[in-house]
Amino acid sequence: MDFRQYLAGQQKRVDAELDRLVPPETAPPETIHRAMRYSLFAGGKRIRPLLCLEAARCVAGPAEGAVAAACSLELIHTYSLIHDDLPALDNDDYRRGKLTCHKMFGEAMAILAGDALLTLAFRVLATLDGVSDQARVRMIAELSEASGTAGGMIGGQVADLEGEGRPPTAALLESIHRAKTGALLRASVRLGAIHGGADAGQYQALSAYGEHIGLAFQIVDDVLDVEQSSEALGKTAGKDAQQRKITFPAVYGLAESKRMARQEWEKAGQALDGFGERAQRLRELAELIVSRTA
Amino acid sequence: MDFRQYLAGQQKRVDAELDRLVPPETAPPETIHRAMRYSLFAGGKRIRPLLCLEAARCVAGPAEGAVAAACSLELIHTYSLIHDDLPALDNDDYRRGKLTCHKMFGEAMAILAGDALLTLAFRVLATLDGVSDQARVRMIAELSEASGTAGGMIGGQVADLEGEGRPPTAALLESIHRAKTGALLRASVRLGAIHGGADAGQYQALSAYGEHIGLAFQIVDDVLDVEQSSEALGKTAGKDAQQRKITFPAVYGLAESKRMARQEWEKAGQALDGFGERAQRLRELAELIVSRTA
Repeated sequence: MDFRQYLAGQQKRVDAELDRLVPPETAPPETIHRAMRYSLFAGGKRIRPLLCLEAARCVAGPAEGAVAAACSLELIHTYSLIHDDLPALDNDDYRRGKLTCHKMFGEAMAILAGDALLTLAFRVLATLDGVSDQARVRMIAELSEASGTAGGMIGGQVADLEGEGRPPTAALLESIHRAKTGALLRASVRLGAIHGGADAGQYQALSAYGEHIGLAFQIVDDVLDVEQSSEALGKTAGKDAQQRKITFPAVYGLAESKRMARQEWEKAGQALDGFGERAQRLRELAELIVSRTA
Repeated sequence: MDFRQYLAGQQKRVDAELDRLVPPETAPPETIHRAMRYSLFAGGKRIRPLLCLEAARCVAGPAEGAVAAACSLELIHTYSLIHDDLPALDNDDYRRGKLTCHKMFGEAMAILAGDALLTLAFRVLATLDGVSDQARVRMIAELSEASGTAGGMIGGQVADLEGEGRPPTAALLESIHRAKTGALLRASVRLGAIHGGADAGQYQALSAYGEHIGLAFQIVDDVLDVEQSSEALGKTAGKDAQQRKITFPAVYGLAESKRMARQEWEKAGQALDGFGERAQRLRELAELIVSRTA
């Protein structure tokens, strides 16, 4: 199966599972379930769930049961987008070409919908079928750490907000991005590794892969914000410079940033050497991440 | 030891554990840890942690290890207060006589501090010492359900917001309050019961106790909003009527509401009959809940 077909199939699988995990729009209180679903099904590429599923496959072969675990990552990712878009934070009206959650449902509902998706992510992991309690607990610990303040997503978001207007240094840049996007991308492969029963070596190799694609992902994000139009991105372009954010292009320039993204992509591929053919889809996902245009 | 001394001692114990669980104000990014701690140590009575500790004691005797589990409830409770106080929701400037989190740290930081406390609650349970993975998973499942949209705290909050201005019916009132405050109070005793290794009968009895005090708690809250001054409450009084909320006094009148609170308190006590003397503190906590004046 070619990569595009594979991608479409897996995204459909993840979407079907998300649909199963989130209460229907008809379940009271209806409004919040509508708001949660609106943002969850707004056309996300499901990169984090796919990383989780493919990491599980690397260690355990086709991992049918891992799809719910994979969805927990999309729940966290979506909550973070809803809250980031709020007027008090990035104040974005559009995301993926659609109105943001608070523009559709109001700020109160957007705040609560984010809270609800975050809460649901942990519920999904706690009630996961077909794995041991020990695996569930490890996944929950990893996901909460990756989403938290100390080196995790929220910590990166705060450092990013506070970094606005500060002199852009390489050290500050790296620490922000490792936390803000890197931690959750690494957690995505780690959850798959835990689900698949990875040994210490496999876990480490997949973690290294996750770290390199995490960095590559963020570099590309920063480059796209400079080079692409708002229309192509489906969100407001050029906001980084406007808000004086610390970005890779600001620190290294555009050409060097692109070279760095390629380098991280290469290192990600090398980390997978021990898995041979089984890691083919993870290599393709890494390629997708560095070559994306939106 | 008399009840006041006991209360002060236990609150101190919970505060010391919360201090251990939340990153210090000096840990980067400092601002969010300051914001989290500001709201967490703003003078809460620690009712939920105490319910958890006492439920554990009922089934297992002095439960030293349960204090971290107890703290997870205060983390959830505090996050919910921070988000509820935001301008888009209840728009409160004061809480417990102090400025609310967003008034002190700005809206962006208050949103993120709430997210961080919510995330930390699950991390605390996933890394709990001295219990089985099975118990950890059960506690996480219970806490996430009690905090979620389907009959949980967020669901109650949404129903409450949407109920403003609707005809106040008894059925709507009860469903809102069971979810909004009742679910987390019931979860407090349930986490203690799970931690202590309760059998099915003990778990059910403690759950019943939790449901009755949950309802009593909310009735008293509604009554206080009518009868007390803002100064005594440490927050804006009379907001329920102003926002046309569905409350017990609005549906039943003040006198009948007070009688109902007493009745729930009695039923809570009856649910504890099987525990004898061991449940003395839980009876006193129920008394504290119905007789509080702020």
